[in-house]
Order: sequence, then C-alpha cells, then structure tokens
Amino acid sequence: MDRAQIESLLHEVREGRTAIPDALDRLRDLPFEDLGFAKLDHHRPLRTGMPEVIYSSGKTVAHVAHIFKHMASHGGNVLATRATRDYYNAVVEAEPCAVFHETARCITLDQAPAPAGKGTVAVVCAGTSDLPVAEEAAVTSRLMGNTTELIADVGVAGIHRLLAQRSALQSARVLIVCAGMEGALPTVVGGLVNAPVLAVPTSVGYGASFGGLAALLGMLNTCSPNVCTVNIDNGFGAAVIATLINRL
Amino acid sequence: MDRAQIESLLHEVREGRTAIPDALDRLRDLPFEDLGFAKLDHHRPLRTGMPEVIYSSGKTVAHVAHIFKHMASHGGNVLATRATRDYYNAVVEAEPCAVFHETARCITLDQAPAPAGKGTVAVVCAGTSDLPVAEEAAVTSRLMGNTTELIADVGVAGIHRLLAQRSALQSARVLIVCAGMEGALPTVVGGLVNAPVLAVPTSVGYGASFGGLAALLGMLNTCSPNVCTVNIDNGFGAAVIATLINRL
Amino acid sequence: MDRAQIESLLHEVREGRTAIPDALDRLRDLPFEDLGFAKLDHHRPLRTGMPEVIYSSGKTVAHVAHIFKHMASHGGNVLATRATRDYYNAVVEAEPCAVFHETARCITLDQAPAPAGKGTVAVVCAGTSDLPVAEEAAVTSRLMGNTTELIADVGVAGIHRLLAQRSALQSARVLIVCAGMEGALPTVVGGLVNAPVLAVPTSVGYGASFGGLAALLGMLNTCSPNVCTVNIDNGFGAAVIATLINRL
Amino acid sequence: MDRAQIESLLHEVREGRTAIPDALDRLRDLPFEDLGFAKLDHHRPLRTGMPEVIYSSGKTVAHVAHIFKHMASHGGNVLATRATRDYYNAVVEAEPCAVFHETARCITLDQAPAPAGKGTVAVVCAGTSDLPVAEEAAVTSRLMGNTTELIADVGVAGIHRLLAQRSALQSARVLIVCAGMEGALPTVVGGLVNAPVLAVPTSVGYGASFGGLAALLGMLNTCSPNVCTVNIDNGFGAAVIATLINRL
Amino acid sequence: MDRAQIESLLHEVREGRTAIPDALDRLRDLPFEDLGFAKLDHHRPLRTGMPEVIYSSGKTVAHVAHIFKHMASHGGNVLATRATRDYYNAVVEAEPCAVFHETARCITLDQAPAPAGKGTVAVVCAGTSDLPVAEEAAVTSRLMGNTTELIADVGVAGIHRLLAQRSALQSARVLIVCAGMEGALPTVVGGLVNAPVLAVPTSVGYGASFGGLAALLGMLNTCSPNVCTVNIDNGFGAAVIATLINRL
Amino acid sequence: MDRAQIESLLHEVREGRTAIPDALDRLRDLPFEDLGFAKLDHHRPLRTGMPEVIYSSGKTVAHVAHIFKHMASHGGNVLATRATRDYYNAVVEAEPCAVFHETARCITLDQAPAPAGKGTVAVVCAGTSDLPVAEEAAVTSRLMGNTTELIADVGVAGIHRLLAQRSALQSARVLIVCAGMEGALPTVVGGLVNAPVLAVPTSVGYGASFGGLAALLGMLNTCSPNVCTVNIDNGFGAAVIATLINRL
Amino acid sequence: MDRAQIESLLHEVREGRTAIPDALDRLRDLPFEDLGFAKLDHHRPLRTGMPEVIYSSGKTVAHVAHIFKHMASHGGNVLATRATRDYYNAVVEAEPCAVFHETARCITLDQAPAPAGKGTVAVVCAGTSDLPVAEEAAVTSRLMGNTTELIADVGVAGIHRLLAQRSALQSARVLIVCAGMEGALPTVVGGLVNAPVLAVPTSVGYGASFGGLAALLGMLNTCSPNVCTVNIDNGFGAAVIATLINRL
Amino acid sequence: MDRAQIESLLHEVREGRTAIPDALDRLRDLPFEDLGFAKLDHHRPLRTGMPEVIYSSGKTVAHVAHIFKHMASHGGNVLATRATRDYYNAVVEAEPCAVFHETARCITLDQAPAPAGKGTVAVVCAGTSDLPVAEEAAVTSRLMGNTTELIADVGVAGIHRLLAQRSALQSARVLIVCAGMEGALPTVVGGLVNAPVLAVPTSVGYGASFGGLAALLGMLNTCSPNVCTVNIDNGFGAAVIATLINRL
Repeated sequence: MDRAQIESLLHEVREGRTAIPDALDRLRDLPFEDLGFAKLDHHRPLRTGMPEVIYSSGKTVAHVAHIFKHMASHGGNVLATRATRDYYNAVVEAEPCAVFHETARCITLDQAPAPAGKGTVAVVCAGTSDLPVAEEAAVTSRLMGNTTELIADVGVAGIHRLLAQRSALQSARVLIVCAGMEGALPTVVGGLVNAPVLAVPTSVGYGASFGGLAALLGMLNTCSPNVCTVNIDNGFGAAVIATLINRL
Repeated sequence: MDRAQIESLLHEVREGRTAIPDALDRLRDLPFEDLGFAKLDHHRPLRTGMPEVIYSSGKTVAHVAHIFKHMASHGGNVLATRATRDYYNAVVEAEPCAVFHETARCITLDQAPAPAGKGTVAVVCAGTSDLPVAEEAAVTSRLMGNTTELIADVGVAGIHRLLAQRSALQSARVLIVCAGMEGALPTVVGGLVNAPVLAVPTSVGYGASFGGLAALLGMLNTCSPNVCTVNIDNGFGAAVIATLINRL
Repeated sequence: MDRAQIESLLHEVREGRTAIPDALDRLRDLPFEDLGFAKLDHHRPLRTGMPEVIYSSGKTVAHVAHIFKHMASHGGNVLATRATRDYYNAVVEAEPCAVFHETARCITLDQAPAPAGKGTVAVVCAGTSDLPVAEEAAVTSRLMGNTTELIADVGVAGIHRLLAQRSALQSARVLIVCAGMEGALPTVVGGLVNAPVLAVPTSVGYGASFGGLAALLGMLNTCSPNVCTVNIDNGFGAAVIATLINRL
Repeated sequence: MDRAQIESLLHEVREGRTAIPDALDRLRDLPFEDLGFAKLDHHRPLRTGMPEVIYSSGKTVAHVAHIFKHMASHGGNVLATRATRDYYNAVVEAEPCAVFHETARCITLDQAPAPAGKGTVAVVCAGTSDLPVAEEAAVTSRLMGNTTELIADVGVAGIHRLLAQRSALQSARVLIVCAGMEGALPTVVGGLVNAPVLAVPTSVGYGASFGGLAALLGMLNTCSPNVCTVNIDNGFGAAVIATLINRL
Repeated sequence: MDRAQIESLLHEVREGRTAIPDALDRLRDLPFEDLGFAKLDHHRPLRTGMPEVIYSSGKTVAHVAHIFKHMASHGGNVLATRATRDYYNAVVEAEPCAVFHETARCITLDQAPAPAGKGTVAVVCAGTSDLPVAEEAAVTSRLMGNTTELIADVGVAGIHRLLAQRSALQSARVLIVCAGMEGALPTVVGGLVNAPVLAVPTSVGYGASFGGLAALLGMLNTCSPNVCTVNIDNGFGAAVIATLINRL
Repeated sequence: MDRAQIESLLHEVREGRTAIPDALDRLRDLPFEDLGFAKLDHHRPLRTGMPEVIYSSGKTVAHVAHIFKHMASHGGNVLATRATRDYYNAVVEAEPCAVFHETARCITLDQAPAPAGKGTVAVVCAGTSDLPVAEEAAVTSRLMGNTTELIADVGVAGIHRLLAQRSALQSARVLIVCAGMEGALPTVVGGLVNAPVLAVPTSVGYGASFGGLAALLGMLNTCSPNVCTVNIDNGFGAAVIATLINRL
Repeated sequence: MDRAQIESLLHEVREGRTAIPDALDRLRDLPFEDLGFAKLDHHRPLRTGMPEVIYSSGKTVAHVAHIFKHMASHGGNVLATRATRDYYNAVVEAEPCAVFHETARCITLDQAPAPAGKGTVAVVCAGTSDLPVAEEAAVTSRLMGNTTELIADVGVAGIHRLLAQRSALQSARVLIVCAGMEGALPTVVGGLVNAPVLAVPTSVGYGASFGGLAALLGMLNTCSPNVCTVNIDNGFGAAVIATLINRL
Repeated sequence: MDRAQIESLLHEVREGRTAIPDALDRLRDLPFEDLGFAKLDHHRPLRTGMPEVIYSSGKTVAHVAHIFKHMASHGGNVLATRATRDYYNAVVEAEPCAVFHETARCITLDQAPAPAGKGTVAVVCAGTSDLPVAEEAAVTSRLMGNTTELIADVGVAGIHRLLAQRSALQSARVLIVCAGMEGALPTVVGGLVNAPVLAVPTSVGYGASFGGLAALLGMLNTCSPNVCTVNIDNGFGAAVIATLINRL
C-alpha cells in the first residue's frame, strides 16, 4: 500500500464510500515502510555529508569501479576503503576525479561539501606500520568535513615524543588512536586529554599479537575511562564516530 | 625542585650570583611535575564535575568506607561501583549523605553540582538481566550531570518494542547500549540513530557466551559504523565517555 | 498516536476539517506499533500454547515466584527453567498447581491445552550426567504439546545400546540429542535417521571439555548434514524448535 | 554369513537336519550388515530426491569431474559445492547437462524429480558478501525440491529494510538466515516469525570476526528461542535440514 | 522381532508354512541387537578384570554409595574416582570392604582377581601437587592387575633427580607420566625410554596454565614420538590404556 | 674424558701413580655421556628397525635429498614425511631405491629388515580427506615392521559401514584412528574393541573446525577410556607408538 | 653405586683383583648423580642465599607448617608464598621467628645472610590492586639480599606520576614491573630506563581481561625491547631472576 | 620554548625586564622535552653500542635500503631483522659494507665498536628448525658486543646431548634458549644453570602448536624460577635483554 493508495482511501473516507472502522482496519496493517520513510534514505548521504562507502576487499576490481561510478552519480561523496592501486586504475577510468591515497588504501571522490566539524580530530599512531590504519581514519575524517591532524611516531616506548605533542593532543575535540603490538597508546593518550578517545587496535605485530588480539584486549582493559574501542584495523569506523561527535 | 627553589634560582640569576649557563643547566633537568602541573590534578574532579571513583570489588568493606570518606572530604562527588549493601552500610556510617543504588550496585555522594550535559544520554538495554550494568551507566551518567533516560525491555528478538522507542532513541545526543547473550542490540540501535552509540557487552548469558565474549565480539564486528565498544560490564566507563561527548 | 487518534483524524477528513495532503503527512510518521500490532503479542502465548518462560538462574526466589504468579494469571502455561527446589517452594505457595521436575530443574504450570504436535519428539542422551539438560528439553517439549520420548543411556562408546533403539529413533518426527564430553552422539544419531536432529552440547566433562566447548565444536563440525546446534545446556531452546517443527 | 548361508540354514531347518534351538544360536551372531541392509543405501539418494554431494575444496579438478560423472550414472541428482569455474569446465565435459552457479560456487545436475517441499524455504542474508553462502543454500534447497525465495540486502543496521520483507519472512515454512560480522540477523528474523530459523554464520568480516567465530557465537547465544545454528559457511547443511523440515 | 518371533518363524519354515525366500526377507530386517548380543556386556567387567567405574564428581554421596553397592553385587571389582572422604563414609557403610585412597581420591573394592599384567607400569610425576592425578592412575593400575611403581619428585627443572631413576624408568613396560605447569616431563621421559609413554596433563598451575591447557598443548607438541596424551587430570584413563598395553 | 682416558686413569691407579682420592675426584666430574652410552645411539635405528626420519616441510628440496642420502648410508631404513613429488625427484636421484607414497606424502627407503610386530596394526579413517594422514600412519607402520591394515570409508555418520568392519577392528592388536571434523570416530571404535586406540585428529574441516581443534578436543574428551591422542595430523607419531605397543 | 663403592672398586683395581676392562664396564653404567654431584644440591640454598620456597596454595595448613619447620632446620632462609594468616598461625607456632607479610601473602624466615645484590631492585606497580603481586616480588627480593624499592601508584593513565619517579626508576639496576588490566606499564617503564625490565602481568581486571590474559599478551607484544615476561601473578619468579641479575 | 628562549628569559630576569613571578609562570608550562633531553636520544645508539634496528617484514625492499643507508650515516651499527636476500641485494648496493646472515635473516653493518659484554651469552636451541630464531639472537648479540656461543642440537627428547653441554651452559653469564613445539628446553636448561635464562618460543611446529602458542605457554608456566619469556620468534628482543644483563 503506497501513498497513492492511502490517498485514495482517504478520499473514500471523505466521500463516505468507506466506513471509518473499515478504514481503521485497513490502516492497521499498513506497512510503515511504504509511507515514504525508506525513500529518504536514498538522499541521506547527500544531506549529511557522509560519503557512500565501498569495502573493496574481496570484491573484483570491475565490481568496485562499477559501484563507485554508480554511487558517484548520486552527487554525494564516495569512499572506497581497503583498495589497491589496481582498484584505483579501474575507478579513475570510470570517474576521473577520484583520488587515490596509497598509504590509506583509500579511493575518494570529494564532490559535495560535507558539514564542517566544530573542532579538530586528532589521529594518533606510533610508527610506520600503523600508518595504513591511521591514514584510513584520517582520509575518512577529512572527507567527512573534519579538520584532521595526523600525529605519528609517538609510541609509548619513547614517552617523551608523545609528551612533546601534548598541546596538539589536548587541543583536539576528539581523538582516534591507532596502535598494534601491545596497544598501550590509547590508554596513555587517554590519561593526557579530557576528550573522548576512540581506540583502533591494528593487526601490526607477530607471534603472540594473534592478528591484533593483544592490542584489542589491551584497549578494552584500558585504565583510562575515556577510551572506547572499535574492531581491529577499523580506521574507517573510528572516523565515522569521531565525525558524529565532532558535529555535536 | 619546587616553585620555591626555582624562585630562589631566579633571584640568584637576577642578582648575578648564578651565571645564566649554570641556571640553564639546572633548569634542564627540572622535573616538570614539580612545576605545579601535578597539583592541579587534585582539584580536577572538583572543577570538572567528574566524581572520584572507587572500584569496590576486591576491596574490604572497611577500606572502601575509609576511601569514600577521604574522597568526600575533598568536596567533590564520590562514586563507588560494584558495591553491595554491606559496603553501603559501612559507607553511610562514615558519610551519612551517601545514597545506595541497589540494582546499579553503586554508592553515590552528590554534593557538588556537575556541569550540565547539553542533551540527553539514553541508556538502553534488553531485559532485567542487563539492568545492573545499565543502571551503573545511568547512575554514573546522572551524577556527572547528564539528563539520562533509561530504556529497558527492548531486546532485538521483539523488534517492535525497540521501534516503539524510536523517537526516544533519536532524540538522545549520545546512547549507551548494554546487551548480553548475542550482543546485537547496539547494532540495531546504531542503525536507527544518527548519534554515537557506546556499546557495553554484559556477562549475561551461559554456555557459549563465555562470560560476555560472544556479546563483545558481536559489538566489535558491528555493521553499524557509529558503534564503539567498552569492556564487558563496564557501564561506568561508557558513562564517562558519554559525559565527555555530551559536554561538547 | 493510537487507534482513537487515527479514528479522530479520519473523522476530520470525512468532515473536511483536515485536507487529505495534511492527513497523509500525519499518517506518514505513524508509528506502526500503535496500530494494535503489538497488543496481539500479549495473547500470543495463550493462542499458540507456547508457555511463558522464566530463566530463574540469577534471579531471587521471591522474584521468580512473583513473575510466575503474574504470568499464570494470564491463563496460559508457565515454565520456569534452571530452578532449584527453593524456587519451587516459593512458587508453589503462590501457585498451588505448579509442579516441580527435580532432574530437569523446571517448574511448570499446565493449565491451558497446547496444540498437539503431529508426531513424536525423541529426546536422546548418553548417561546420567546429561539428564538435567535432556529432562529440561523433555519437560518443555511435553508442556508444549508434544508426545515426547526420552531415550537415555545410549552413549557412542557402547554403540549397540544406541542401535538397539534404532526403531524408536527412526519413528521420531524430530530428535533432540544432548551430549557432553566429545559430543559425538548427534552425529551418530543423525546418520541413523532421516529427520532433523537438534544437537544440544552439555557442559558435562572436565579438563579439555572447557565447559562444553569441546562438545559444541564437535556438533558444529558434524559430518551428518541433518544436524543443527543450539547453545551449551540449552535444552529449552531445542524443545522450542522441535515444537515448531512438530506442528508443521 | 551371507544370504546363501542363511538360505542353506533355513533349508536345514526345513529338512529337520538342524534343530531350531541350534538355528537360533547361529542366527544370534548374525552380522546384520550382511543381510543386504547396506545395499539399500545405494538407492537412497534416488528414492529420497536428496542429491549425491561432492565437497570440491581440496580435491583436484579431475577427481571431482570423475566422481561427478560416476554419481550422475546412478540416475539421481548431483551437487558439487565449493567449486570454481575450472571445476565446472571439467565436469561439463564429462556431464554436458551440468549447470554452474557462479555466486553459489555450485555445480548441479538436475535429472531426477525431487519430492516437492510443502511450503517455501526463505533464504535470507544481509549483503553481497554473504551471497555465496546464501546462494549455496538456495541452490541446494531448489535442487532438493523446495520452492525457495532468496531475500538479500536486509542487514540489521537498516532494520526498515528487513521489516519491509516481513510478510515474505512470515509466509516461509522454514528460514535459512546467513550473516557474517556480528551475526545478529537470525535473532532479529527469529523474533519476527513463528517458524524454525536455521542460522548460518559466515566467515565474512575481518579483525575480531576471527574467521566467523564472532557470528557463530552470536547465533549460539541468540535470545530468539526458535534459532539453531550450523557450521560457519555451511549453506549446504542448512538447506538439507530445511528440506527435511519442509517435507514434514 | 525377538527370539520368540524368530523361533516361531523357524517353526513355520520347518512346517513349510513359510517359503524360504519369504523367511529370508523377514530375517533381512532383523535388528541384530535383539539377538542377545547386548547381554554379554553385563559380564564383561567380571571376565576382563576391568573394574566397574563411578565418576563421583557431581553425584550425591547417597547416589554414589547406592551405585557402588549395586556394582559390587555383580562380583567384580569396583572403583569410584574423584571421591572425597564423605563419599567413602557412605560407601563403606554399604560395602564394608571398600578402601579409601585419600590422595588418589579413589574408593576401591578389590574382590575379584584381575589378570596380571606382564610387566611393570611406571607412574611418574614431578611433585606433591601432581600426586592426586598420579595416585589415581596408580590405584587404578593396581586394581586392574598391574605391578605398578610410583616415581615422584622427578621434575625436569632438576634433571639429575630424573636421571637417577633411569633404570626404573627403562625397566617399565609402559609409562604414565603426569605433569602440570609446562608439562615437559613426558617428553624428557619419552627420550629416556623405548616404551610407550602415556602423558597426563594436570590442572596444577596458575595464571597462564589456564587450567591445564599449557601442559596439554606441551604434551601434544612433544618432540618425543613415543608419547600420546589423554585429557587433563585423567589419571584413570591413562591407567586403562596402560593395562590394555601391559596385557599384550 | 673418553674410555681411553678412563682406562689410562685406572692404569695409573693400579700402578700407584695416582692416589685413590685423586682418582675419585677426577671421576666425580666424569661426564657420563662419554662412557660409550651416547655412541650406541648412532646404531639405535639400525638395531631397532626404527627408521631415521626427516620432517620435510619447511626444508629445501636439496636439503632433504642430502640428509636422506646421508641417513641411508648408515644402513638403516629412512623415512621422509610431509614430502611432495618434487622432494622425491631429488631424493631418488641421490638414492635410487627410495619409494614415493603420493597420498601419504612420504618417501621411504626399506633396506633393513625391521623386527616384525606381533599382531596387526589397524589404521582406520572416515573418507578420502583423512587419507593423507591415515596413509602416513600406514606407510610408517609398515616400514617399522607391522602388518598393517588400512580401513577407510567408515565414518560415524553411516555407522553400519563401521560395524561391517567389526571383526577386522577386533582382530587388530592396536588401532590408529584418524578423523577430522567432529573427530568422533576413535570414540566409537574404542567402544567396539578391547585394544588401545591411538587417536589422530586431522585438520580436515572448515569453519569451526579451527584447523583440527574441534577434532582434537573431541578425542581428548572421549568417553571411551581406551583412547589416547597425538597431535593434529601426526600420523607418523601414532605409528611409532603403535609399533612400540605391537612389539610388546 | 656411591663414593664408597667406587673407592672400593679402585682399591680392587690397584690390588689387581679387578681387571681394568671389567672396572671400565662397571664404571660405564655409573649413575653420575651418585658421584657427590647431587649432594651439593642440599647445601645449595644455604650457600647461595636463595631461600627454600613453599607454594602454599592447595596445600593444607598443617602440611605447610610441617615443611616450613623442616626446611628451617637446614639453616637457610625459608619463604612460603600464597599464604593466608591461617597458614602463618600454624607456621609461627612451629617456627617462632617466622614473619608474616599480609599484603604479599608471604611468610618468611630470615636466619641466614643472603649475598648482597650489587644495586637496587625497583618493584613498580600501578595501584592498590596490583600490590599483592608487587609485594610478593619485593618481599622475595629483600629476603634474597637485594636493596629493594617499591614504587606504587604510577599507572600509565596518569603518566606524570610515573615521570615523577624517573630518577628512582633510572637508578635501579633491574626493574620488576607489575600490571593488570591492559598491562602497559612495563612498556612505558622500559622506554624510560636502560636496564632489564621483568614484566609481571597480574590477574587484576574483569571482563575481557580474562584472568590476566590481556595484560600478559600486552607485555609479550611490548615495543620496548628490554622487557621480558613471567607468568601471571608470578611476583616470586620475577624476584628470583632479578636477584640473579643483580648479583652479576 | 627551546634553550634559546629560556636563555633569553633568564636575561630578561637578570636585567629586571621580567618580574620573577611572571618568569615563574612562563617556566611552569615549560615542556620538558625542549630542554635538550630528547636530542640526546639521537646519539644514544652511538654512545651505547646498541645498533639502530629495522624490522624488515612488511616493508618494501627499497624502503629498507633507504632507511638502512640513512641510519648508517649516523655512524653507529645497523641491524635489519627478518630480511631475505632480496633485501640484502638492495641494501648492499647502498651500503657496501653490509653483511648478510642467511639463516638469521639479518643484515648487519658493524662500523662502531660496541662496549664488550663482561661474560659469554649462550644461545641454545634444539634443532635446525629453530636455528633462524637462534641465529637472529646470536647475530644481534654479537653485534652488540657480546662473546656469543651458539649451542644447537640439544633437544630435551635426547637429554644426554644437552647434559654433554653442561659446562658450556654453566659458564655462560646469561642464556637465550629458543624452542618450538612443546617449548620445554628453557625449563630443563634453567634447572642446570644458576644464571638468568631468556626463553624464546618459536613458531616451529604444526597442529596444536597454534603458531607457537604451545611453546609460549610452556615457557610461561616453567617450573624453573630463573626463566623469563619474550614474544614468539623474538630472538632480537632476547639478545637486547641479554646484552643489558651482560653489561652489568
């Protein structure tokens, strides 16, 4: 039962052709999703500045390029994560304005202005190994309209390097902290700031890191109460939450 | 080296009794924490409206009562989590204004006005089993100055009950969602709102729940990108993060 | 917006006091759950013969007795699982017709005829240790209207005892098979019958059984394709599914 | 002791050369498996409409083609799961009527009418990543004689899309629900229907999904009592159980 | 079809009332388990000298005493494992000849001579903590007719104590080696002897021993190829296997 | 200090050139391994008929061929496990009598008669997937002098196929049972025989088999007390233990 | 064969009563441990100042008191770990000079001067919950002769408290760092000092700490290369290693 | 605020241009890391003889060569771990004095004399499979200035080979013991020496070794109290700690 049908029912009611109890019965079974509600969703990315997103891993190059082009035609921003240069080569042919971020393994199309976040999102990580995840977070955060500052090379084993960034950390409105191995960085950062810290465990490490499990457990057991955690390597997710917080 | 010593050093410099290179050398090793920085921390709870907190589990009743009284003397609010009525009986003798929240297993002392959060914090859970964790979050959230709405009995196996709360969910500025067993509630809530969702896995369940592991993994693997997660049963931590977000 | 409000809106439409486009707009946001849909749920146990269920573990004796009495007042059957005799003593005082099943750790109230299942539900287990789970399944199954046959003492280490029950197994319409330790029984039973087998791992065992994990993994990795699995010790859940199947 | 020996024994009995008590003793040790019992099995797939099945993964292309052709010669239907196009190319040369289902990774030969299931089997999944498992279930289900409806793109993070399919879900006689990541879909579907739900965790996900473990645990801990679970990615197994249920 | 029915069938054959082909057909479906086969099992413990066994843990004192007395009446030996003195007090009242082995946590009744094993079973463990498991193995082994030598206090951290027992170890026909913590003892013993080594991981340890998991994994990964492993704390099982080997 | 040196010391003692207390002191530090003890080891494989063994996986083709030839020169039998045909091609060039067992992934050189085992070693497995592990056990067992019978295609999901082999199983002196997936076969076989059963979990399976963990746990938790277990896929180790038992 | 027997053999050699080849043969089988080597061990604790140690947990009060008294009679120091006051009451009755350390859960007898360590052993932990493990390390370290400094209340979530202790940390010759929850403290300390850091994970925490597993994994995955790890809660072991290092 | 700025501030104080309270305020916020502290770090490898280190795995060949050359230009030693010959070929082109250690998978540049360790570092392992990890430790240890002795082929399954090395083991000042599979070697070595033992679990093994987890747990649960453990395969880390100890 779509809008036209309801309209027609209302006309029958007005004209007395349908009794009100009968109309009530027919409305009772009304599937709410035909009331236009669902259609709004199609415009949601455009209105909110959130990009449409493709998780490339496990999809074919051709498939990603096809979806990318299709999404781009809606007029909003588009983001493909976990993409290699092969994916980009196919995407850029279909969508010449697409940009490749090699370290972040992201392809972006920035064609619609996202609402500006109110403050700065700081993306923090220890070293070069965590950069792909940190850059995924930073690229996503920027595409979503946030002033984003990437602070790398601040591992906890050399605590003075982290302390040297204290003012940058403390001026951020929300922080994304990526760390592999023992995953201690979010806890230490959490103790230095008075803002929400979004912890991203990375799969960086070997042996007893068990693919990021050690870092994940470390973050969940943080003794800094302002830290919460997303999935291993999920820089994208952290940036979405940071954006929602930064728009408040 | 404290402020008095530095002051004295500066006097020596002014009076020419100490050469500037020597003063530089002595300052170089200056422990920054003696510069007054650390002392601020003692006033931090009072200034920020964050309570001082005691994790009661594993401590003796007498020990908790003693710490509680000591913290209360600082003038700020005090919160003891994971406390039974036995703990309360000892605490209330030392601090007659302390209040016991039985389901939440919390003792609070609310003697200092916390800065008001800007919006509502919604605390959502499925049923009676998750209530202790949800109430811990709600009690903490209220003590920290947030208008807090507890929405219980909305498990995903009866989705219409959750949908009936859609407007309450959508009017929250930040949401805390507690769930045990399969831990699916934060994901479904995350799909209904455009705000940050703080997921709290609970240890409710048996068998293959493995003490909350199933719910924890479910939340970390959420397909709603606006969900992040804290430790199992950590209602307190979720409330701290919600407060930080709600003050933005 | 409840039925009365919609009725009133329809009157306004009929009387021309509200334009049809305005009525459409107001209906568009109509929360479907106020259309009477949810109310049906309250009668659902009564209509379907499914009992209302209380998971007693972790609840106080008084709480369980209170809920039990309240549910009984709806007129349908009531089932409390994971209950000790202490719980029963409290329940039977509130509800004198309640019956205690000691091995099954269940309290039942059978006051409403459940629709009869079409065939027999066989509940199979190896030995005395698995009986509490098997009996929970059997008690639940009977309360839900199924002819239920309990076949115990048929462990796979003495395969001829199981084979001696082949005709009983093969005449069941659906089978519930409970096993702890290595959890092999459902697979062997699955190979003997041509009916759906619902496997229930139990926490019976020690050492490397890890609380039923060994049995659970064994059942999930079954080489009999007609076997599916529920949570460890979840005799109740298996009986619910068996009932749904047996009513087809 | 084979048929000939028993025949000879019966002749001795008839002719009085062997006393009945002695004949009884000799029959007592009769190995049942020599009575022709096992031979029935060879006709079983043909009689029941269940296909003969090859799990291709780990076998060579030539081996699969050889088995497929051999099974096809029995006259029943044949199904090869986990097969790539390379396997198909070899199979179709040996058996020209074989059909390849690319997404499902299945090769089928449909040469014998399977008994029709009584109702519809609904196969439900969230998105494109879960499709291979869902399609494996759907292809298997159809080959086994079930009217099968595939309902995709109904993830729990966009609950209205799932609710829009409520009538399709509710009209199914049995449901197969495939989900990776947090694995919440079967629980939510289970709350919407009054039929058995067969949950299939998929290995879709990354990081803390641990190859499908998160989804598996989520399904085992479901709070919908009408859900039971099969092994990770086991679409085939779910379809077998659905078929057995749908023939009741 | 029971013995009477077969007897009646044979009479029909003899009397010519049933044709032999028809008799053959009816015998073909003969369930072998009704042929008396199973009854032999009841005498098995008595014939083989294997005791009847009760796993006491989780059973009530009264229940164990009842089973013990019942088994004793069959005339064979009886063994109750995982029993405390409370159990013994009840058992000895019912069966005055029962003996309690405190460290081994076993109750035995030795009333039937077991066949003597051909050589010596050596039971080896490191220290006092592993003794309960080692003694359970030794008590079981002796009751089953083996000359059994217990060699304790030979942990691998003081290798000379183990080497001092080399001749005792080398003269055993089969060895049971119990170890907790890192579980290295069976591997080292395995390298010193040319006989089968049955490794029993114990739950002795703390922290990362995870209830015996560390010892279990250590034994499974042994670099001595003559070592095989039973469940954690399963001294009884090791003794059964040792007995079977020692009777060869 | 070797035999010559000790001999020389004794001559000094006899001739009075060394005082007895001094001789005692020099002997006190005598490394026992120089007393000829260790040298025996070099002949051990030759004497015992145990082959020298190479675990090929992770070694280069050239390295394996080199070791193989070197070992062969000692005159005993040689076994290389986990070898592909590439390894064989290199080995056979160096040692023309070497034989390749493709399914078993073994290369053998049988140039020295091993002591004959006293009975038959039965190697049992379910299907084609477990054959590589079962064949590794069988090839090893034969090379070590055992009459070895391989019984395949007897999975527990079709129990009558296993029962049809009952006499073969019962006539074995020791059994090696290989199984993947749920790993139930050793338990069922253990219930049918009165001999030691060596269980070999295989890594066959997918999803929740977790690389053989499910089968391993199943075997460790067996309810047949005559079953003990070796590492996942360790057919070789099982054959070594079977040989030691079969020589008793 | 003890020293007397060898002496007698040498006399026979000198006197020509035993031929040298025969003497060689008898010496070949000489158990090296009878050469006085093993006896030294009995004096080892006395010589080295290492106490004799009793792990009390799981032993009876009487048993511990008995062993303690026996060890004390050797004249060296004695240490009982994991002891409650009940144990102490029994021990002090047997050995009046024994001292109880309540937080450390240790009983010590200090009657023999241990060799002094060359520098300071620093024992570091975060808060009151980790104190039992840290105090066990400190008590052990002091009993073994080390100047020992306990530095508590320096958790990584308040990094300035740790930095304030930098000079104390840097002046230690070896450090023991105890931490529960996320276990990050050893890594941060490791970055501040140039000395070996012995990390002790504690079982402090809840939920996803899994009994100290999170802290353990964090320490094993440390990015400070000067950190190594002992078992969960093993303060004693860390002190032993620290002592060995501090004596170098 | 760098040294120049502080110097200028002191001049202002001396000259009376800045009041002392104002100077105090400006100094209070002084970031300690600008006081020259951090710069020292750049010279640290050169001063201490610790090499600068590159973990090659996961980096491109070109990237490693570039970093290597850059580090070499600082004048200190350089070490690249987990490197293949491809990496070496690129490195040696940039830095002709670089040396490749094939088994150790290390590239070294030894251009600065490291301070000599006081004693010998023994690196012990069982067989050829553990050699890459043991060699990584040995190469690192030598580059850091330690006399280093590699003792291989001493697995615990042939304990006499290990005992034959007793004097070499006992003369080491610190020991690194690498072992895969059951990981028992460090415990046995720990019982033979009176020095610190650094245990390195290796990922050598298959099946239930779970990538080195079995060896890791074995080492953490050691019954030799002088053993501590580093991450799986972390030969480098063990050598760093050994160096720190050997310089004491």
